[in-house]
Amino acid sequence: MTRFSFDLHATDGAARTGTIHTPRGDIRTPAFMPVGTAATVKATLPESVRATGADILLGNTYHLMLRPTAERIDRLGGLHGFMNWDRPILTDSGGFQVMSLADLRKLTERGVTFKSHIDGSRHEITPERSMEIQRLLGSDIVMCFDECPALPADRDRIASSMRLSMRWAARSKDAFGDRPGHALFGIQQGGLEPDLREESAKALVDIGFDGYAVGGLAVGEGQEAMFGVLDYAPAQLPADKPRYLMGVGKPDDIVGAVKRGIDMMDCVLPSRSGRTGQAFTRRGVVNIKNARHADDPRPLDESCSCPACTGYSRAYLHHVFRAGEMISGMLLTWHNLHYFQEIMQGMRDAIAAGRFAAWEADFHATRAEGDIAPL
Amino acid sequence: MTRFSFDLHATDGAARTGTIHTPRGDIRTPAFMPVGTAATVKATLPESVRATGADILLGNTYHLMLRPTAERIDRLGGLHGFMNWDRPILTDSGGFQVMSLADLRKLTERGVTFKSHIDGSRHEITPERSMEIQRLLGSDIVMCFDECPALPADRDRIASSMRLSMRWAARSKDAFGDRPGHALFGIQQGGLEPDLREESAKALVDIGFDGYAVGGLAVGEGQEAMFGVLDYAPAQLPADKPRYLMGVGKPDDIVGAVKRGIDMMDCVLPSRSGRTGQAFTRRGVVNIKNARHADDPRPLDESCSCPACTGYSRAYLHHVFRAGEMISGMLLTWHNLHYFQEIMQGMRDAIAAGRFAAWEADFHATRAEGDIAPL
Ligand SMILES: [Zn+2]
Ligand SMILES: [Zn+2]
Repeated sequence: MTRFSFDLHATDGAARTGTIHTPRGDIRTPAFMPVGTAATVKATLPESVRATGADILLGNTYHLMLRPTAERIDRLGGLHGFMNWDRPILTDSGGFQVMSLADLRKLTERGVTFKSHIDGSRHEITPERSMEIQRLLGSDIVMCFDECPALPADRDRIASSMRLSMRWAARSKDAFGDRPGHALFGIQQGGLEPDLREESAKALVDIGFDGYAVGGLAVGEGQEAMFGVLDYAPAQLPADKPRYLMGVGKPDDIVGAVKRGIDMMDCVLPSRSGRTGQAFTRRGVVNIKNARHADDPRPLDESCSCPACTGYSRAYLHHVFRAGEMISGMLLTWHNLHYFQEIMQGMRDAIAAGRFAAWEADFHATRAEGDIAPL
Repeated sequence: MTRFSFDLHATDGAARTGTIHTPRGDIRTPAFMPVGTAATVKATLPESVRATGADILLGNTYHLMLRPTAERIDRLGGLHGFMNWDRPILTDSGGFQVMSLADLRKLTERGVTFKSHIDGSRHEITPERSMEIQRLLGSDIVMCFDECPALPADRDRIASSMRLSMRWAARSKDAFGDRPGHALFGIQQGGLEPDLREESAKALVDIGFDGYAVGGLAVGEGQEAMFGVLDYAPAQLPADKPRYLMGVGKPDDIVGAVKRGIDMMDCVLPSRSGRTGQAFTRRGVVNIKNARHADDPRPLDESCSCPACTGYSRAYLHHVFRAGEMISGMLLTWHNLHYFQEIMQGMRDAIAAGRFAAWEADFHATRAEGDIAPL
């Protein structure tokens, strides 16, 4: 069986390109992972997600443990077959979403108890239970159970939370055990404090993981503060392992993160925005509900090869959005996922060719032009 | 340019199979037309609709004239390009939906005035305006503007309504003019009264149309009464032209109609049911929201080759329906459209082979078995 491994092919400044090998297929990095919250990337079929160029999806432990439950997915043969996606799946630990979605949360050294936001039932997640759930789901890349404080938070709170997360990381590693072909990633915490980030990185490396996430960002701190951390945090983590930035982001967040040495990202933005009529294009965001598109026969982006752009006008996309038709979310989500993957491919090629700076300058220059002028 | 024409290939009892030739492609009959109300067959991409075997779609004049308007669709190049469907489209006249959806309707000899159910704006449809709208949409098969009384109604009301519709049919024909490659269908009325149906058929044949619809059915009269009319009404219409039964129906309605000499049908049922968790299968209706499916690893229908059945378990379809995920409507609609087209192909083959009765017996026997037993 293929072991989990990471080959770094090229670097360009801090930016890196490589391949993560897994028994379920390779993941080209830098990689963007679409989010399949409830065992579906909303409004898309998995073959469409694959067609956009995605090598890996993210599944949400919190959502899946509540419905349909990890035990049921296990009985049915695992998450891959359940959702008809045979390539790699990364699952989060459940910790972040418990903190943002569940009711009556109670945090102790042991773990977190909470009430389901769906039916009010009581649940507990500990590092051991998180590892069990992710094993039942059949996840290829498993995340340590951690606690992520919302920012801003005072330094003492961030330090004590980070140290709890490091103790949980050690328990996660013990509970994960030896599972050839599956990977366990540690999650660096420490807020915006370089020394706490360094302490966290050292603690994780001492435990030893297959990859490392930069956690605790994209939680309201803003792009400047996030980039501030990314200016040093990736270099605190081992260069020979994948580095994952959780929950990021907008296209310019993604480009800035890759520039600073990040290899993997995930975000609901392409699908969530698609359902609310927002399209990401090379020239910025297009709000398809805007009346200026009602008579516009041009595609969203004339250079895009996705089905929404090759088959439909802005006028059509405007019409079906206003009419509340499902095809609106289906087409815009497809376009957005396609665009995000196009950015990733562009960066991979640019890093391999040693021209990342030129690619990035073009990326920003095209966005600065803004959307095409109305007819 | 290909003219509009109809070749009858074979008959078996009253059942017929043939081909309607149009400049935009052939339509194999008996044909089921999925409904694309607002320029989309809900929850599906047009290439998926085509993949199920559909040769032709139906568009709703009433919906499209209100939003995005026929004039806008015309400016954008017509309905085919607008909705990315280059094969034939049949449009209804708007009459039936004005009567069922619009507010403050007022019917005169001239036509119908009404208020939009979307924004309350005032509109008028006359036979002449209906022909204009359907021409602006670029419809391949245009329907006469008619009035369809709800059943039950007394004989005098049905007779006077039918005669008004026949006067409107003549005005529709005049307004349609000479449009090579496009067809105009007349619509027989007369409720459940054989002599009024006969009078209507004669009036239509005197005017002369490219095809004839049996109208005024599937409006609440029940299957037995509908089949009662279909036992004689198709034979009142010319044998060398297509016969279209509007708004039908459930699988057994469709089979009974084809058995009685109907060549074309349309219905929202496959897509509407798909969005509410109902799947049509060879063995009857499956309500996927039922808890019995929660742990069932089997497909909806093991013999179905659609993406929903080849890629997913009942447990998955149950889960995504309960979670309110769009993929639920997407997959169930695809399956339902596939199943309806499979019925049509089965009937076409059976009629051509002179074994329609055996096919029909098998159709009913398989349905009578009911759904597979729970595990
Ligand atoms: Zn596109
Ligand atoms: Zn199927």
